[in-house]
Amino acid sequence: MMRQAGRYLPEYRAIRAKTDFLTLCRTPELVSEVSIQPVELIGVDACIVFSDILVVPEAMGMELIVDEGKGGPRFPQPVRSRDDIDRLAVPDPHDRLKYVLDAVALTKKNLNGRVPLIGFAGSPWTLATYMVEGRGSKNFRYVKELIYSNPKDAHRLLEKLARSVAEYLNAKLEAGAQAVQIFDTWGGILPPDEFREFSLHYIEHVLSLLKKNGAPVIVFCKDSNHSLEAIADLAPDVIGLDWTIDIGKARMLVGSQVSLQGNLDPTMLYAPPETIRSGVIRILEKYGKGSGHIFNLGHGILPDVPVEHAKEFVRAVQEESRRFH
Amino acid sequence: MMRQAGRYLPEYRAIRAKTDFLTLCRTPELVSEVSIQPVELIGVDACIVFSDILVVPEAMGMELIVDEGKGGPRFPQPVRSRDDIDRLAVPDPHDRLKYVLDAVALTKKNLNGRVPLIGFAGSPWTLATYMVEGRGSKNFRYVKELIYSNPKDAHRLLEKLARSVAEYLNAKLEAGAQAVQIFDTWGGILPPDEFREFSLHYIEHVLSLLKKNGAPVIVFCKDSNHSLEAIADLAPDVIGLDWTIDIGKARMLVGSQVSLQGNLDPTMLYAPPETIRSGVIRILEKYGKGSGHIFNLGHGILPDVPVEHAKEFVRAVQEESRRFH
Repeated sequence: MMRQAGRYLPEYRAIRAKTDFLTLCRTPELVSEVSIQPVELIGVDACIVFSDILVVPEAMGMELIVDEGKGGPRFPQPVRSRDDIDRLAVPDPHDRLKYVLDAVALTKKNLNGRVPLIGFAGSPWTLATYMVEGRGSKNFRYVKELIYSNPKDAHRLLEKLARSVAEYLNAKLEAGAQAVQIFDTWGGILPPDEFREFSLHYIEHVLSLLKKNGAPVIVFCKDSNHSLEAIADLAPDVIGLDWTIDIGKARMLVGSQVSLQGNLDPTMLYAPPETIRSGVIRILEKYGKGSGHIFNLGHGILPDVPVEHAKEFVRAVQEESRRFH
Repeated sequence: MMRQAGRYLPEYRAIRAKTDFLTLCRTPELVSEVSIQPVELIGVDACIVFSDILVVPEAMGMELIVDEGKGGPRFPQPVRSRDDIDRLAVPDPHDRLKYVLDAVALTKKNLNGRVPLIGFAGSPWTLATYMVEGRGSKNFRYVKELIYSNPKDAHRLLEKLARSVAEYLNAKLEAGAQAVQIFDTWGGILPPDEFREFSLHYIEHVLSLLKKNGAPVIVFCKDSNHSLEAIADLAPDVIGLDWTIDIGKARMLVGSQVSLQGNLDPTMLYAPPETIRSGVIRILEKYGKGSGHIFNLGHGILPDVPVEHAKEFVRAVQEESRRFH
C-alpha cells in the first residue's frame, strides 16, 4: 500500500503523539516498530522501511523543516542558482544517512523472515522539484523555469541527484533491503519530451549504478502513463502503476518482461468493504491470469482511511487473487 | 490562452483592486472590459467571456463564497446527501444567470466583430467535485466516496448538472457566443472506467442537448488522455489538449474529424522569449501541416507570467504558424 505505515493506524499515531516526524525517521527502533505495524495489524505481504524521500536532499546539505500539523515539509533555502547546486554534496550514506541503514538492518532483524523488506527513494526529478520549489507546489514555477530557461543547470543538479540516490539505494540493499522502489511523484507535471529528458533519463542513470545482486527494482512514475513503453525500455523488474490506466491495457503495452504493481484508486478505500472487494476483483480480472502482478494501491494509502477498510482490502486481495495466479 | 483575462495583466488588476471577484462576474460592463483586455493588449485571436464555472452551482441554489486573497472559492454547505441533491434546481439561465447573458451580449457588441466570442462552462463532473467537496481538494475524498459508495445519488446529481450546463450554454449561444467550451478540470482524478461513467457520459449528455446552430463546441478534459479516442467518439468540433501528450500522437489517435486545441505547457511562459518561440515551433512541427489546429496553452495562463512573455507567445504563434497552415 506504499505509505503503509501511517496515520490511518492508531498504533502509528500513538508513536507520533510522542515523537515528531523527523525524530521518528532518525530513530531506528521506532522506524522498525512503525514499519512492522502494517505487517502485524493489516496483514500486508511486504514490509516497507518507513522514511521520507527528503532525507536525501537533507544529507546533501539542505536544511529540512517538517512543521507539525500543516504545510508539509519544506526547505527554507531552496536551490535557485548554480552556486546552490554546486554547494550540494553527493553524500556517503554510511555517514550522513547511517540512521536509515541502521533502521533497515534492525527492521530486517525484527521481521525475522516473515515478509520481504522494501526500501525506497525519490527519483532525481521528484527530489529536484522539492529542492527547487522549497515546498509542495501547484504550478512548480521555479523548477519549470529552471528546465526551460537553464537546462544545463537542471542537468547538473539531476546528475548529482542520480548519483546520490543510487548510492543511497545501494546502501539500503547492502543493509538488508530485498527490493527497492524509485518514486517519481512529479514526473507527471512535465510534457512527454521533458519527462524523458529530465526525469526518465535520470531514473535510467540510477538503475545503471545499482548493485542489485538479484534484488528486484520497482519504478513508479505517477501520472506518466504516456511514456509507459519508455519506462519498460529501462527494464526495471517491476513498473508501479497509478490508478489512471487500465492495468490490462498496461500489460499489453509493456509485454511480459516486466511485472506490474497496482493499481486500485486509493480513495476506493473510503467505500464500504463490499465495494472494495469488487474493486479488487475488477483489477484482478483486468490483469487476467498468469504471473507478474503485485497487487497494490495506485498511490499511498490516505491518512483517514478506516483501519477495517485497509484490512478488507488486503484480505480481498489475498482471497480473490488465488483464482488468478 | 483560456483564463486569458486575468491577474497577469495590470489593467485587470486595476479593476480587481476596486471590485471583488463575484461583483466583477456580475457586472456586465466590467466583464466586457476585462474580456476584451487580452484582445487589445495581447493580440489574441478570440475573446473569452470572463466568468467562473461556479456561477452555475450558485444559480442552482448553493451559497458561493470567494475569499479574497487565499483559499479560493468555496461552498459553505456542500452537497452531502440525497436531500441536498434534491434541493438543487435546474436554473433558468434567463432568470438566475441573466447577468452572464447580459455580459455576453455587451461583450459581443463592444467587440464589434473584431474576433469571435467564446463562452464556457464547467463539465457536470467538475462542478460536482466542487459542490460535494465544498472547496478545492487534494484527494477528493467526499466526491469519490459518493461515486464508489452511492453511485445512484452521484448519477442523480450529475444528470441535474448536465441539464443545467446545457441550458446555460444554450443561453450563452443565444446571447451571442460564437463557440462554447466545456471544461473538465477534474475528470483526471478518476480511473478510466469511472471517467467514462461519471464524467464523459454527462459531457455527452450536455452535447446532446446543445442547440449549436453551427457554433463549434470545444471539449477540454484535463489529465484524461487515456480516453482520447472515447472523447473523439462524442464528435465535439474541437478537443482541447493539456500539455501531457504529444499533439502529433493525439492527431493520429483522433483522426481528421475533430480539430485539436493546445498544447504548450503554461509554465513555459516563465521562460525567456526565445525559449517560448522554440516551444511554439516544436508544437507546430508536431502537429504538422494542414488545418484543424487551434494553438493554445495546455491549461490557463498563470497569474504571475510577465505580460511581455504572453505577448511573445501570441506573436510567435501568429508568425510561425503561417508555414504550417
